[in-house]
Amino acid sequence: MTTLRITGGRVLLPDLTVERADVLVDREAGEILAVGDPEDLANGDEHLSAAGSLVIPGLVNAHGHAAMALLRGYADDKPLDAWLQEDIWPAEAELTPEDVRAGAELAIIEMIKSGTTAFADMYFEVGEIVAAVEASGMRARLGHGIVTVGKDEEAARADVEESIRVAREFDGSAEGRISTAVMPHSLTTMSEESLVRSVEGAREAGVPVHFHANETREEVEPIVEEHGVRPLKYADRLGLLEEGNFLAHGVHLDEREIGLLTEAGTGVIHCPASNMKLASGMAPVQRLLDAGVSVGLGTDGAASNNDLDLFDEMRDAAMLGKLAADSAAAVPAEAVVEMSTTGSAEAIGIGSGKIEAGANADLAVVDFEKPHLTPAHDPVSHLAYAVRGSDVRHTVCDGEVLMCDQEVLTLDEKEVRETAGRRATELVERA
Amino acid sequence: MTTLRITGGRVLLPDLTVERADVLVDREAGEILAVGDPEDLANGDEHLSAAGSLVIPGLVNAHGHAAMALLRGYADDKPLDAWLQEDIWPAEAELTPEDVRAGAELAIIEMIKSGTTAFADMYFEVGEIVAAVEASGMRARLGHGIVTVGKDEEAARADVEESIRVAREFDGSAEGRISTAVMPHSLTTMSEESLVRSVEGAREAGVPVHFHANETREEVEPIVEEHGVRPLKYADRLGLLEEGNFLAHGVHLDEREIGLLTEAGTGVIHCPASNMKLASGMAPVQRLLDAGVSVGLGTDGAASNNDLDLFDEMRDAAMLGKLAADSAAAVPAEAVVEMSTTGSAEAIGIGSGKIEAGANADLAVVDFEKPHLTPAHDPVSHLAYAVRGSDVRHTVCDGEVLMCDQEVLTLDEKEVRETAGRRATELVERA
Ligand SMILES: [Zn+2]
Ligand SMILES: [Zn+2]
Repeated sequence: MTTLRITGGRVLLPDLTVERADVLVDREAGEILAVGDPEDLANGDEHLSAAGSLVIPGLVNAHGHAAMALLRGYADDKPLDAWLQEDIWPAEAELTPEDVRAGAELAIIEMIKSGTTAFADMYFEVGEIVAAVEASGMRARLGHGIVTVGKDEEAARADVEESIRVAREFDGSAEGRISTAVMPHSLTTMSEESLVRSVEGAREAGVPVHFHANETREEVEPIVEEHGVRPLKYADRLGLLEEGNFLAHGVHLDEREIGLLTEAGTGVIHCPASNMKLASGMAPVQRLLDAGVSVGLGTDGAASNNDLDLFDEMRDAAMLGKLAADSAAAVPAEAVVEMSTTGSAEAIGIGSGKIEAGANADLAVVDFEKPHLTPAHDPVSHLAYAVRGSDVRHTVCDGEVLMCDQEVLTLDEKEVRETAGRRATELVERA
Repeated sequence: MTTLRITGGRVLLPDLTVERADVLVDREAGEILAVGDPEDLANGDEHLSAAGSLVIPGLVNAHGHAAMALLRGYADDKPLDAWLQEDIWPAEAELTPEDVRAGAELAIIEMIKSGTTAFADMYFEVGEIVAAVEASGMRARLGHGIVTVGKDEEAARADVEESIRVAREFDGSAEGRISTAVMPHSLTTMSEESLVRSVEGAREAGVPVHFHANETREEVEPIVEEHGVRPLKYADRLGLLEEGNFLAHGVHLDEREIGLLTEAGTGVIHCPASNMKLASGMAPVQRLLDAGVSVGLGTDGAASNNDLDLFDEMRDAAMLGKLAADSAAAVPAEAVVEMSTTGSAEAIGIGSGKIEAGANADLAVVDFEKPHLTPAHDPVSHLAYAVRGSDVRHTVCDGEVLMCDQEVLTLDEKEVRETAGRRATELVERA
């Protein structure tokens, strides 16, 4: 066993109190061994300084499309429909496997640099994303996004089977850092038959199902018309609402649908920036929390955000949650810090998000000696409202140091940036 | 004449196009001499590298309370009333002149580091803020905030006269970088008589009036009840809506009030983060823009934000503006970039916000060689949605370099941080 000791800092404990403590990590097992008084801990084979800093659980980005980083800022300020049909889909149709790899690596670097250690991702060419995750040292739950609308029966069926195949093939890869899910895109872009087969395939493969739901008002109505029930009642009928499954968005939900989520133990991944930027609406986050729904936080793709910084997302979630509830007391700092750590980790089913013995050694060290973090009356408030990704000094995942003193160690930042920039330019020229 | 040349970068021009150009500055006059092809410009006595970067106008934070940086994160997630009465006012009552100085310096450092070169500020102990601005090299419009509610007639009158005195004393100070305004706090915290005297005093002093208005729903109703008209009709009657005056917030406005603003040429300073964090509501920003109202952008105090980064504020404004208008096409990237530059500068009446010959030499140089700014399909989109304050390399105000390679040259960052941290701790212990 070789150990890593994170020294000299303060630590955000699972109850959200902050304590002067060191953290001792078993690097091979990728687990936290102990958190405590520096005098009581073994010395550790390697040290990482957290002086003047706060050690927090690595953030978990529970919904996104990493490779879309290539389309960051490509088409903004357009309604969802026009944006997808005129800009995003035509560009995505031109993506090569190498583009997906370049976009995923760019996104991964951005996430590591802003203290994110795990993410859930729905895309295609998943083998490329697996390779990027493997090289980077991050943790991820990956899946092939299925869309059957506009496809003939055979093509639709093949797309579902591809998602099941991908889920089977890669689950447990990268020394267990990668898990998978079957990922039907949404309730309105999938035939009923293919949704049912997705659920069945996921059960057979022993993985969860992840999908988009109730994102826009325009998406709710057709389901009510066709099936006579609200979207999540329809989803429940098809077996999509089960413990361990998780859906993205959940903006337009009625009380009965919230009840279904609570009952099922299905998680909701809140994506506030995307919901604002596409004018989708305000998710009832405080009501979801009150109902005991497991709520995680996600950036969605970089094209609708336009960054992958979960600190931004926490701030957005707290602020939008207050507007949605018409109360400044709603969705407080503590709630969004939990959402981006334990909330996301539980929703996507990984043992991260807490700094305590036995948990995954997924951590970030945040420099608090900054003007915008002075004074430090309340570190949890700062995490929610004032810290930005660039305040992260070190990032550790599965016991390995992925970034030290803001330098990413597992990927070549400059090369990834240049490759992604070049491929993005060529992509939009083709599209 | 000594000159400064900003070399090797791309420049955001007043029409929001981006061009490869150098910028030549007259340091003594504090003015931009020329913007153009590097081959066509004089060499310049000093150089500042903008390689790989975008040169933008210095951002203008058009509404705030800088010294409240001492209360950053002190009390969050509470309704406006309780927040003010239980936390903010008791703490502010304990503020010494030295505290105000320390808080203002902390805020100024944060603003310089995030590319802001000018700000408008309403507070007390304005002499201390003047001294901080003077030392820092920033540009500011400053005023003493008047509150008469709960005061006897004599004290109320004295407070108004103090604001007029402050406006007269400091207008034109710091070699012209400081201008002033008379600053009645709001329509509901001021007696009618003292509002009228504020307007009269400002006219006599030749300075504008700045006040808060229509921030919360709770603030609109009492005016309608007492005066039988909406707040801005009441303000108009008292002479508060005049060209050059500017108000903060304007969240709850009807069409008639928007018409009054257009007609009068009174600016509105939009503070989206504060409006979200205090659950005040969504300002009708696209409607204000459509009506030709001059709209600026402000952070408000750090206690309701909790940072002073105008890049955050641009993103918030674009996103909240879309939700308010129920359209992803509303308040596009271009609009928020204009809001934080020319919009704010015009609203508070300073000759900044544009990179062109003859304008104030107020600039920021933003490093674009970052993963979260890759690819760069559209630099204006990045300024609105993806750049954060920490991407700013250099800040120049009035021809002087205030920050070079992220090091603030005019104030001692470490000392300011430590003093502010110590004073903030002592302050909340007293309160
Ligand atoms: Zn998505
Ligand atoms: Zn204010």
